[in-house]
Amino acid sequence: MKNIKISALFLVVGSFILNAQSLKSPDGKFEMSFQLKEGVPYYDLKYQGKTVVEESKLGLRLLRDGDIQFASEIENKDQKGKNLDNGFTKTAEKFDAKNETWDPIMGEKKSYINHYNELAVTLDQAANDRHIIIKFRLFNDGLGFRYEFPEQKNLNYFIIKEEDSEIDLPTDMKAWWLAGDYDSQEYKTQTTQLSEIPAQWPTSYDGNASQTLIKNAVQMPLMLKKEGKDQMYINISEAAVINYAAANLELDATNFKFKTHLTPDGQGAKGYIQTPAVTPWRTIIASPKAEEVLASKMIFNLNEPTQYKDTSYIKPTKYMGVWWEMIIGKSQWAYSTANNVHIGKTDFTKLTPNGKHAANNTKVKEYIDFASANGFDALLVEGWNTGWEDWFGHSKEFVFDFITPYPDFDIKMLNDYAHSKNIKLMMHHETSGSATNYERWADDAFKLMNKYGYESAKTGYVGNIIPRGEHHYSQWTINHYLRIAEKANDYKIMINSHESVRPTGLSRTYPNWVAAEAARGTEFEAFGGNNPDHQTILPFTRFMGGPMDYTPGIFQTKLDYYFPGDTRFVKTTLAKQLALYVVMYSPLQMAADLPENYAKHMDAFQFIKDVAVDWDDTKILSAEPGDYIHTARKAKGKDEWYVGGITDENARNFTVDFSFLPKGKKYEATVYADGDDADYIKNPQSYKIYKKTVTNKSKLPMKLARSGGYAISVKVIK
Amino acid sequence: MKNIKISALFLVVGSFILNAQSLKSPDGKFEMSFQLKEGVPYYDLKYQGKTVVEESKLGLRLLRDGDIQFASEIENKDQKGKNLDNGFTKTAEKFDAKNETWDPIMGEKKSYINHYNELAVTLDQAANDRHIIIKFRLFNDGLGFRYEFPEQKNLNYFIIKEEDSEIDLPTDMKAWWLAGDYDSQEYKTQTTQLSEIPAQWPTSYDGNASQTLIKNAVQMPLMLKKEGKDQMYINISEAAVINYAAANLELDATNFKFKTHLTPDGQGAKGYIQTPAVTPWRTIIASPKAEEVLASKMIFNLNEPTQYKDTSYIKPTKYMGVWWEMIIGKSQWAYSTANNVHIGKTDFTKLTPNGKHAANNTKVKEYIDFASANGFDALLVEGWNTGWEDWFGHSKEFVFDFITPYPDFDIKMLNDYAHSKNIKLMMHHETSGSATNYERWADDAFKLMNKYGYESAKTGYVGNIIPRGEHHYSQWTINHYLRIAEKANDYKIMINSHESVRPTGLSRTYPNWVAAEAARGTEFEAFGGNNPDHQTILPFTRFMGGPMDYTPGIFQTKLDYYFPGDTRFVKTTLAKQLALYVVMYSPLQMAADLPENYAKHMDAFQFIKDVAVDWDDTKILSAEPGDYIHTARKAKGKDEWYVGGITDENARNFTVDFSFLPKGKKYEATVYADGDDADYIKNPQSYKIYKKTVTNKSKLPMKLARSGGYAISVKVIK
Repeated sequence: MKNIKISALFLVVGSFILNAQSLKSPDGKFEMSFQLKEGVPYYDLKYQGKTVVEESKLGLRLLRDGDIQFASEIENKDQKGKNLDNGFTKTAEKFDAKNETWDPIMGEKKSYINHYNELAVTLDQAANDRHIIIKFRLFNDGLGFRYEFPEQKNLNYFIIKEEDSEIDLPTDMKAWWLAGDYDSQEYKTQTTQLSEIPAQWPTSYDGNASQTLIKNAVQMPLMLKKEGKDQMYINISEAAVINYAAANLELDATNFKFKTHLTPDGQGAKGYIQTPAVTPWRTIIASPKAEEVLASKMIFNLNEPTQYKDTSYIKPTKYMGVWWEMIIGKSQWAYSTANNVHIGKTDFTKLTPNGKHAANNTKVKEYIDFASANGFDALLVEGWNTGWEDWFGHSKEFVFDFITPYPDFDIKMLNDYAHSKNIKLMMHHETSGSATNYERWADDAFKLMNKYGYESAKTGYVGNIIPRGEHHYSQWTINHYLRIAEKANDYKIMINSHESVRPTGLSRTYPNWVAAEAARGTEFEAFGGNNPDHQTILPFTRFMGGPMDYTPGIFQTKLDYYFPGDTRFVKTTLAKQLALYVVMYSPLQMAADLPENYAKHMDAFQFIKDVAVDWDDTKILSAEPGDYIHTARKAKGKDEWYVGGITDENARNFTVDFSFLPKGKKYEATVYADGDDADYIKNPQSYKIYKKTVTNKSKLPMKLARSGGYAISVKVIK
Repeated sequence: MKNIKISALFLVVGSFILNAQSLKSPDGKFEMSFQLKEGVPYYDLKYQGKTVVEESKLGLRLLRDGDIQFASEIENKDQKGKNLDNGFTKTAEKFDAKNETWDPIMGEKKSYINHYNELAVTLDQAANDRHIIIKFRLFNDGLGFRYEFPEQKNLNYFIIKEEDSEIDLPTDMKAWWLAGDYDSQEYKTQTTQLSEIPAQWPTSYDGNASQTLIKNAVQMPLMLKKEGKDQMYINISEAAVINYAAANLELDATNFKFKTHLTPDGQGAKGYIQTPAVTPWRTIIASPKAEEVLASKMIFNLNEPTQYKDTSYIKPTKYMGVWWEMIIGKSQWAYSTANNVHIGKTDFTKLTPNGKHAANNTKVKEYIDFASANGFDALLVEGWNTGWEDWFGHSKEFVFDFITPYPDFDIKMLNDYAHSKNIKLMMHHETSGSATNYERWADDAFKLMNKYGYESAKTGYVGNIIPRGEHHYSQWTINHYLRIAEKANDYKIMINSHESVRPTGLSRTYPNWVAAEAARGTEFEAFGGNNPDHQTILPFTRFMGGPMDYTPGIFQTKLDYYFPGDTRFVKTTLAKQLALYVVMYSPLQMAADLPENYAKHMDAFQFIKDVAVDWDDTKILSAEPGDYIHTARKAKGKDEWYVGGITDENARNFTVDFSFLPKGKKYEATVYADGDDADYIKNPQSYKIYKKTVTNKSKLPMKLARSGGYAISVKVIK
């Protein structure tokens, strides 16, 4: 009897063990558990024994195998059995671990540490004689997981109806979120409790050139804070979105449960998969300290190393642009008064110039003069090419050819002129969302760039995507961005994409895709305006997966300078604009204002001229999402550091502790700070500049004005 | 008083005249009237005073101007005022005429006569301060009309919801029709009265790789016959479908009224128009004689002359193919047993050959030997390139690269071998409907063709179109076919497109687009089967807008020869197969059977070897749609004629009158006729061949078996 009882107990215990598995992070603080409950997979996450993510379901629902017909045939209610979300048994688990460092070509540090423990569970779905793998990687900064679909007899092609990966949070939390959308991330970040999201959602967005809202959904990266006891900062995002739709998160606001919501194509299908295949990684970065979330490189670590053979052409870029003056309305992208042009047919030399075309020989040369004299790498010129007269709002497929300059833009002369002054022009490829057209012209467009010595292109996707029906974050469009990056690599060209999908660590695999906008940038200060806390949030959200071309550096923040009575203004002080170069990481940074505004403040401009954009090291000194960020970074290959601090609509004090400096050296710190009477509304251009000698023992008290900041360049005294 | 009365009368008469306009054909037999009734445009057509088309409405409905959003936003019920179908006044009319001949590069005659009277009415829509033009061209063989949208202040961009061009017939009529569809024309032609179409429609189609039926609609070209007194044969079609969707016809079966129904994109929009723009021509060819409908070149006349600079590479092609043996199931396109391959990643040399791959070096050489020995210009080889293992049914975008041969197809060796035997290989580009992928690879694909000396490519579109949501006949896809034709011209390549849109006379403008399938061809004899009257109908329908690659020439009509017990068979006699080369015009003709079957009937095969495919002259001797066609054609540049006659499921007699021959010459006629006991079911291979000397006074009685025919080569005796 005893034997039988013991055996039965063992069996019970054994089966419990067999169906549940756990994983710890290298430092043991995180623990993740995986279990099957009645054939349905779940996971959870704890930090030092406290629940970060409650038991959350995993799985995918599928449309029928094979060729998908049109919308009316997509719903297949009979296909319950064929979903990849039930009926599983675990047939294998495999543990693995990695501890490596790798050097990004450009980054916030010279080397990133990639250290994790891994668990891959093989789940067999007997009813359909097929299996999938769910792979978990647990880092010291959190969890990543993805689905893998090995090539096998009964799983070759399938179409995803929806991925249902849940992240079930234990309590209500503070959240910094954007309204969910298939086409735009250019909304103001909302700061509310999770439970308040449904009520806030309807007013959480403004109009956009291309938008498709998803009710009660939010975007990723999503930043959360569990306040009070066992405080945790949590960031939810995705890594390595390749040949897969980008995801939003649906919210069950009663249970504080998020679930992935993929971007569909025009027919409602959410992914066309051929095995072997993997999904993106769903990432949950968490720490009691906000600074450690900001410092996390998990999303990059989860991306594959690049296969590019030659990456020597990929380098940091500081640039100015013939751009802001069009954004504010002082001049135009278009050359003529026409409102209806046919690329390849219209003779642009016969059109009537509108007199406001910015990208003309005279003006571009002036910008070249200023930018080159001040040591910039490149000058962006928008509006250089034919087609701007009717580029937007008409679903015009053949909207640009990317190779024909306007009559007043002498592409050869201007590039020769720029090169004679040791600066390059930066190409502009506005696609107007017409991705099929851009692909058609990409080879010729890149050949033109090679011919005239352009090294980088800013691309744009303003407007609905063509193929019509696809969204900016649909699988097809994701693959389009990657095709462009790969083709650009063939031509040794760097890409900075605007209105594209936000990066998900892909700069590791596609390092020439150096930056993206893909969020509400500085230009919106001239449109609906940005909130004063905007820049204290974005590094915790948009920037987590990769750099953003935020285009900072506006010195003339009030636009009534140009247009009397104009109430628009950039909602920061001038000093805060300088700090952004440090606080917001990008290897491609713009000094966005007009030369004349810098000319009036060459003392402040010196910081922008000095600041590096590529780093050996980064220290997040202090940060709270939505409130303040203070960051110090060491310039790559130099004995120089740059410190930047910003605040929201509240004035703040902060003491910069220079203990990050190496011992035994002296440095000259040049401090650019808000003036004592500075205020982002009343006195934004009040700033002071002073020098101090500092060592690693120094501490410097800083006063930040409302939506103010400071920037410090720290150069070794030899 | 009198004066006032007269003036009033004059005013009434005058306004009647002002609002109605008429046009006559050059020979005066046709008369067309245009009128506005309460601001709505109408036209009608009479032949010798009898109504051919009753008063029929014209116009278009528009979606809102500007950027179209996704499906839910397309319906804009407020936009009544903005349609282009009401509120018009006629502000101008312009008459014109043309009488020219032009020489097609390849055709049924050396020269075509383009002779018409034209009326262009300008219609002003005061409420929206914009105008359109409706242009009518009246030929001796019927009417063409189209809409024109001049570039103007208030008409620059619009999106078509539907074009509502009506063709209101006066009575019930006999109709030869296909079920309306956005993706396929591969259905069996139905023969019913118009009034019977709704009842017949549900059973009028079978399954297809890609199909989107439109209930109670029919396709164009549509063939009609008003029987009885004032008999008329009427063909309704369209010409010059460029940058516009192809149309089906909705039928109001009670009123015998057709209306255009354009092919939508995935969002339901039916055309994105930028002015200046024109629609395709809607064509109504009519004659009391069926033969004159067949002889009509109106659709070609309504197309623009080509802008191609060099057309010397465009020439007639007689070809054989490694093809039929796959169609019947004797061998395969695919090389290996795999069912899941990744182009660019899978190493095909490591896959297990399936042992049935037809496009292998040994077999291709055998076909080359036979085809070259028998004077053919080219040999098509399908299944030469990687990707066939999983090419269909998976919505796989990157399905082929069009440049990588299978391991057993040595592209260099085989092309060298072919060229050494004075024959070319014909390229095959099956796109699987993945048009975006084909465009991506087209340059490399065409460069490969140039490298190895391929002159022509058969393209295929089997499966749903990618961009997903577009249809085979959507505006986007129409433009895709044209982009491919234009790019092929850059590489001096001829295109023969299968499963594409049916031609609408475009071979005048794009002469390298030499042929298309775009209908139910010979291959369907091995699938669902074709009706015995099929080939007596197609010249009146499918062929009206351009050649069809019908791929005739099957000698081994019964497939139980390959597969004992197989009930499939080609539903014609062997002699009828020979006649098809004359009755069905194409400058690109295939001898579709396997060499071994020709080898067994080299006497009959001689006709295929002899027959021309490009012509100085064509005489339709006698024809009745669905019953019989007898045609004589003069070979271009030779003193040779070819005569062909076919019948439906009924045996028939016909006397060939050789009065088309020039006087005073003697010709040797070699007659290939059904044997006395021939029958398409019981004895299809019974044929007799005999020679006769003929002059233009000769008459030759022919007996055609059930679904039989005869072919005669007529060569001058010097």
